[in-house]
Amino acid sequence: MRHFADRLARAARDKRTAAVVGIDPVLERLPAAMRPTESGLAAAVAAVESFGCSVIDVVAPIVPAVKINSAFFETFYEAGVGAYFRLVAHAHARGLLVIGDVKRGDIGSTARLYARGHLDRPAFADVDPARIPDAVTLSGYLGENAVRPFVEIARERGAGVFVLVRPSDPGADEVHEFGEAERFYQHMARLVGRWGADEALIGECGLSCVGAVVAPKDADSTAALRAALPHTPFLVPGYGAQGASADACRPCFLEDGTGAFVNASRSVIYAHENPVYAERFADDWRAAVEQACRDFAADVARVAGG
Amino acid sequence: MRHFADRLARAARDKRTAAVVGIDPVLERLPAAMRPTESGLAAAVAAVESFGCSVIDVVAPIVPAVKINSAFFETFYEAGVGAYFRLVAHAHARGLLVIGDVKRGDIGSTARLYARGHLDRPAFADVDPARIPDAVTLSGYLGENAVRPFVEIARERGAGVFVLVRPSDPGADEVHEFGEAERFYQHMARLVGRWGADEALIGECGLSCVGAVVAPKDADSTAALRAALPHTPFLVPGYGAQGASADACRPCFLEDGTGAFVNASRSVIYAHENPVYAERFADDWRAAVEQACRDFAADVARVAGG
Repeated sequence: MRHFADRLARAARDKRTAAVVGIDPVLERLPAAMRPTESGLAAAVAAVESFGCSVIDVVAPIVPAVKINSAFFETFYEAGVGAYFRLVAHAHARGLLVIGDVKRGDIGSTARLYARGHLDRPAFADVDPARIPDAVTLSGYLGENAVRPFVEIARERGAGVFVLVRPSDPGADEVHEFGEAERFYQHMARLVGRWGADEALIGECGLSCVGAVVAPKDADSTAALRAALPHTPFLVPGYGAQGASADACRPCFLEDGTGAFVNASRSVIYAHENPVYAERFADDWRAAVEQACRDFAADVARVAGG
Repeated sequence: MRHFADRLARAARDKRTAAVVGIDPVLERLPAAMRPTESGLAAAVAAVESFGCSVIDVVAPIVPAVKINSAFFETFYEAGVGAYFRLVAHAHARGLLVIGDVKRGDIGSTARLYARGHLDRPAFADVDPARIPDAVTLSGYLGENAVRPFVEIARERGAGVFVLVRPSDPGADEVHEFGEAERFYQHMARLVGRWGADEALIGECGLSCVGAVVAPKDADSTAALRAALPHTPFLVPGYGAQGASADACRPCFLEDGTGAFVNASRSVIYAHENPVYAERFADDWRAAVEQACRDFAADVARVAGG
């Protein structure tokens, strides 16, 4: 099993873009043709899952990875969680790497259980290993013990983690900008860098299997984070619907244009709502998603790579 | 629908204890008679669920509430998540209040989805409302926007939240003790106090529906947190298997002995492993759990209440 960062870097090279599509399906925003025709939980889950599968089919030839956000499935209880795992398997079948956006974080003895359920090889022969993502997002809020069980699994099976360092929501500043000489997000960045610094965790590409979620804010502070974490792959939220441009994401990349992966969710999967695409592709929402994905992938490629 | 804090305070008065039992079943630690006889995921989930139901039956006459930790069910994928929700409903049927220990935290647009799936009244007529806990634990790591959707639901339906302020794992100190004049956990405590300060969120008992998870550390710093948060109910982890005594939990309570709820998980549900109970109750693991629960409830009652 190859190192996660090597696999992701290779996939980005093959697709010529470090763009990652986020699968965040909300029932109310599905294209008209994809909405459930019956009421009830099962029909809602089927609609969301079917939409997710179709989006994955459309974007699979264009991007190296998808990020599937667990919240959008947990909203449908265990039925939705089942759809989450089936979508992970579907994305794998389409040749994509998959990041499970679960942002779990709990004390050590509990973190082991979360790690088993979200990143480890299944302990049961009747569970398809393809249902488990290649990486997950984590909260580092409870310290190293909350992250270590995931990191151990990542090293053993060539998987990865992305620990939250700087969220895209400005409302999080009241937490992450705490501090005087050193800010809290800088402290967290240092911890995350340390958690992934062991040589055994670094791939051939020079990146660790312990990554960071780093939203682009002002260029200087982002560049400082990038310089402080030379071996840490960045998963970059905030592009598109959340307001950040590809240029704003530029400081998240290393000098050679690698080391960061930019996520867009709503601006791609709801392209049918965007007049730019809706007019051109009329009733073909898949074509709208495809074009939005190609534009996103090209935009990211413009600021990254050689 | 009455206010969550009033319901919890009333239940604690009725049971004469502020003890909360944590349902954290691990397959490897089930009593011999409860272990699965077949391999495979379904048999494992059935065993864990059956054990959880039995523990709930035993503790229901003794304590006001149970805390069910999602991690121990997510480790079995969607099958385990289904068991989590069924156990919530089972505990409700036994007259218990239920805290869902999910520690979710994500940016605002995503937090709304988590809140729908974990605390809101079901939007689907075919989902039993009894499956939804009365309160959930949250991470406040992403700021107010990550918590507000839950708080709005809590106010509307008489539910509650407990936001993590001070975890029981000493390994979390590298995060929570960050800072100079003010420490990070003190900053988080102030935020949580503010998020729950609105008059509309305070119950007749004087406590808010926005609580805090506060592990007992040295008595002085715990007393300072208690004084800084006069309207915040504390959910107190760390008792028992994690090392804290009831006396150590005393500073978490208000002067009048209310305002805190002490959780114990492993020391109660695995009483059959403890020589003190194992000898006395031989092969009757339920009797061991019952006695451990009574001892725990009495120990908490000793330091709280009038």
